[in-house]
Amino acid sequence: MNIILIAASEVTEQTVTLTDHRAQHIRKILGSRPGDILRAGIIGGRQGSAVVQAISNQEVTLRLDCQQQSPAKTAADLILALPRPIMLKRVLAQAAALGVARVMLINANRVEKSFFNSSQLQPARIREALLQGLEQAGDTVLPQVSLHPRFRPFIEDEFPALTPGYHLRLLAHPGPTPHHNSASTNEPASGEMVLAIGPEGGWVDFELERLQQAGFTPFSLGPRILRVDCAVPALLARTL
Amino acid sequence: MNIILIAASEVTEQTVTLTDHRAQHIRKILGSRPGDILRAGIIGGRQGSAVVQAISNQEVTLRLDCQQQSPAKTAADLILALPRPIMLKRVLAQAAALGVARVMLINANRVEKSFFNSSQLQPARIREALLQGLEQAGDTVLPQVSLHPRFRPFIEDEFPALTPGYHLRLLAHPGPTPHHNSASTNEPASGEMVLAIGPEGGWVDFELERLQQAGFTPFSLGPRILRVDCAVPALLARTL
Repeated sequence: MNIILIAASEVTEQTVTLTDHRAQHIRKILGSRPGDILRAGIIGGRQGSAVVQAISNQEVTLRLDCQQQSPAKTAADLILALPRPIMLKRVLAQAAALGVARVMLINANRVEKSFFNSSQLQPARIREALLQGLEQAGDTVLPQVSLHPRFRPFIEDEFPALTPGYHLRLLAHPGPTPHHNSASTNEPASGEMVLAIGPEGGWVDFELERLQQAGFTPFSLGPRILRVDCAVPALLARTL
Repeated sequence: MNIILIAASEVTEQTVTLTDHRAQHIRKILGSRPGDILRAGIIGGRQGSAVVQAISNQEVTLRLDCQQQSPAKTAADLILALPRPIMLKRVLAQAAALGVARVMLINANRVEKSFFNSSQLQPARIREALLQGLEQAGDTVLPQVSLHPRFRPFIEDEFPALTPGYHLRLLAHPGPTPHHNSASTNEPASGEMVLAIGPEGGWVDFELERLQQAGFTPFSLGPRILRVDCAVPALLARTL
């Protein structure tokens, strides 16, 4: 945890009293004492510092001074064939840490049906995974996460209706497809690029066709087949 | 598991009989039947196909035809401040999957001493994690892993003695240091580049100085602090 994240609703007159895992982290991992200054931020808002005002076994009181903007989001949004629950949790945290602004979780032929019934898809569980990534990276702004349980309506209707439209649409697919070198020197703004990553076992031909019809260009890091928690950071880093 | 990996010592006249987790994978996950063709490879050697000759509840017999070379390794070797055991396991698998040829696990000020006593450092456990990565990626060649429990002898004596010397030496450090754009158009060969990734909490100043004296250039993906299992694929992908 490299930043203590606090909901705006928890704060009264710049002061917050924590009693949960954040208090425990400040006490046990950071070993903080009154007067110490920590990095803190308001979820969805600004970040800055927090002075420890009081610490007991039950609670930690902080006085906040949050005036700085969080790091910019990356240019690339993510379309992700829904991974298995334990992987989803990890990948959501990674996406949040890497600064993805929007994650679209979609169905695909090789996504197991049961994954859409996972408790990891409950909004509170998604939020928890995202917060973990933000706490790691030092960001305050939660990515938007949406769920699209039908592939075809997504790619034919929902995706084209999204704003902003994406100038660059990349489709990750292992293999000898042209290596798209997207490491550009100018810095594209958030929402300019979208990257689609398939399920374990890959996209099926129908999905590849539809994605290409929707303007997606295949993009590969080479012949190696990467697990999604390795592919997401690797592919996103190529788009930075 | 995208390739069945087999030790050369297990093979007699192009044939191997499996009884362990690989047999189970072929039976239960792949649901293979006699006559099916699987992707297989010899650990440290070539890869190709395997015809299922017989399947029972106890064992699976394959006939191998391994004539193809495995994918080339990436240009970047890895120096990694030893992470906590569970993370080490994951990162070794990632490094193997991404095609790293050599991993040097080193000590650093912010590496917990107990990590060097972890059972995850036993050669058999390291090999297991690496094989998992190779099985995922479709590679057969194990990375070399070495352990360097003292930072200063490593950076002053052991590292300079390594051959080949690395033309490009990068030091990952979050922050506003110059963004090294290493996405080169020519493809450097394995052993040309080395990337050093610090511990949770980062390198201390002394380590940064010594690494820079040893020819390492700081390199950043931006201000976000990434967990090592997110940083490794992200940073390696930038060097591809």
